[in-house]
Amino acid sequence: MTTAVGVLHPGEMGAALASGLLSGAPVDGADVVWAGEGRSPATRARAEEIGLVDVGTPEVLVTRVDLVVSICPPEAAVATARRVAATRFGGTYLDANAISPATAAEVAEVVTAGGGAYLDGAVIGGPAAPRLHLAADAAGGSGGRAGTIAELFGAPVEAVVLDEGGPFAASALKMVYAGWTKGTTALLFALAAAAERLGVGEALRAEWELSQPALPARLDTSAGAGRKAWRWGREMDEIAHTLAAAGLPDGFHAGAADVYDRLAALKDASDVTVEGVLALLLDGEA
Amino acid sequence: MTTAVGVLHPGEMGAALASGLLSGAPVDGADVVWAGEGRSPATRARAEEIGLVDVGTPEVLVTRVDLVVSICPPEAAVATARRVAATRFGGTYLDANAISPATAAEVAEVVTAGGGAYLDGAVIGGPAAPRLHLAADAAGGSGGRAGTIAELFGAPVEAVVLDEGGPFAASALKMVYAGWTKGTTALLFALAAAAERLGVGEALRAEWELSQPALPARLDTSAGAGRKAWRWGREMDEIAHTLAAAGLPDGFHAGAADVYDRLAALKDASDVTVEGVLALLLDGEA
Repeated sequence: MTTAVGVLHPGEMGAALASGLLSGAPVDGADVVWAGEGRSPATRARAEEIGLVDVGTPEVLVTRVDLVVSICPPEAAVATARRVAATRFGGTYLDANAISPATAAEVAEVVTAGGGAYLDGAVIGGPAAPRLHLAADAAGGSGGRAGTIAELFGAPVEAVVLDEGGPFAASALKMVYAGWTKGTTALLFALAAAAERLGVGEALRAEWELSQPALPARLDTSAGAGRKAWRWGREMDEIAHTLAAAGLPDGFHAGAADVYDRLAALKDASDVTVEGVLALLLDGEA
Repeated sequence: MTTAVGVLHPGEMGAALASGLLSGAPVDGADVVWAGEGRSPATRARAEEIGLVDVGTPEVLVTRVDLVVSICPPEAAVATARRVAATRFGGTYLDANAISPATAAEVAEVVTAGGGAYLDGAVIGGPAAPRLHLAADAAGGSGGRAGTIAELFGAPVEAVVLDEGGPFAASALKMVYAGWTKGTTALLFALAAAAERLGVGEALRAEWELSQPALPARLDTSAGAGRKAWRWGREMDEIAHTLAAAGLPDGFHAGAADVYDRLAALKDASDVTVEGVLALLLDGEA
């Protein structure tokens, strides 16, 4: 069996998923396509490097594939689904975005109303070794549709079917997982900036060296992540909504969204330092 | 030279500071006193165990000492200072509480208006090995009054004079330090509770085992800290105010305060489990 797959849109992580499809057992390389119209030169370069076939627009793409993989910034997830659903795409729509279960439900409704089948996914880990979590469909467990699609992916992707948590389990897992990793990075930035503003930056580093020895290095290595802050603000919003919907405080990630929004100007910056991150947080100037 | 010291009030950490004074070079044991009137049997037992002399009330205490050490829940810091200032205490008032620089400034104003001298302090680390940070006074550095008072403390206390950050540097340092330690514990509780509510608790643990291997153990060992949550809510408020005053988001610690407030019922609980903490967060029932 051959499954043709369309990837919308191969950013860094989308390209990693596409590579996994190209190396996966049941897929012939020519059957992984993307829609290049209007995408950035960087996206085109990545797509060409791994050998994806450009079919132009999403509207053409859906006529060629059985499976669409949506991998885009969280705020584009619903719009991407709407564009596909408008074509009456009848295949499987795998949303692998960092969105709340509520947003995933909205995407699912759009996809289903258009005649497609929704599959909830989420990616944890970097592009070098991503784990693609897939929610088991109602049919159940890894024996269902999710299991069939998991088998399409080869290295570097590890696809995992979640046996619990319902139809939006992958989105839920992504939210609570990234709520820690990206939430604590934002918190670390905010506290280091506050220390700087209050004149105790060096004292804090000295105390960390004694009693939290991993933190100075974590702060230093996190600075580079400031480059990705522009697309983390809305992910933090999705996490805040997820916690609120679960009856828990949303303040942590409202704060994290604010931190990342202030750092959005670091997109494509060539050299990001801790000092630059803290200055941008405090004064809007890097 | 002998300096008589009064400790208000020797809870667990106050008792540790008092022990440091009793073991410190310039202090004769009989010269460390406390005010036992109306305090709990547990506080009395701790004070008697380390050999503090009970002089009854704060009003009597201040007539006997040159230095008052205030170590109490954050929300009692200003009231404790007011009670001492009302006596026209003319000695040094060391506030070692977990309060924002703004609250510390309020305490300083109360103390100074009453005729005393304010010294800003804060404790980092547990009662077994606390570091007492002291803000350098305007006279500057470890050669000033802060240095003299630092020398009063022996084991288990390590007293450190902060050369930078101004008259409320110790409070500032405590806020940004505890903003991480207690802030991340609250975040971990909130995310684990959300995972439970969303049905992905086991999937989150499995993902953590792979990619965040320290977290499962941290969650398990943090559960016991739920017992102290009753006095951490207001400390989180102080941290939130500190960040807001520094122009940074206060949401992280507003969320943390909410988490700890929900856990206040665990005070004096004999057996605190992760399951109990999460149930209390989600449903108000342990």
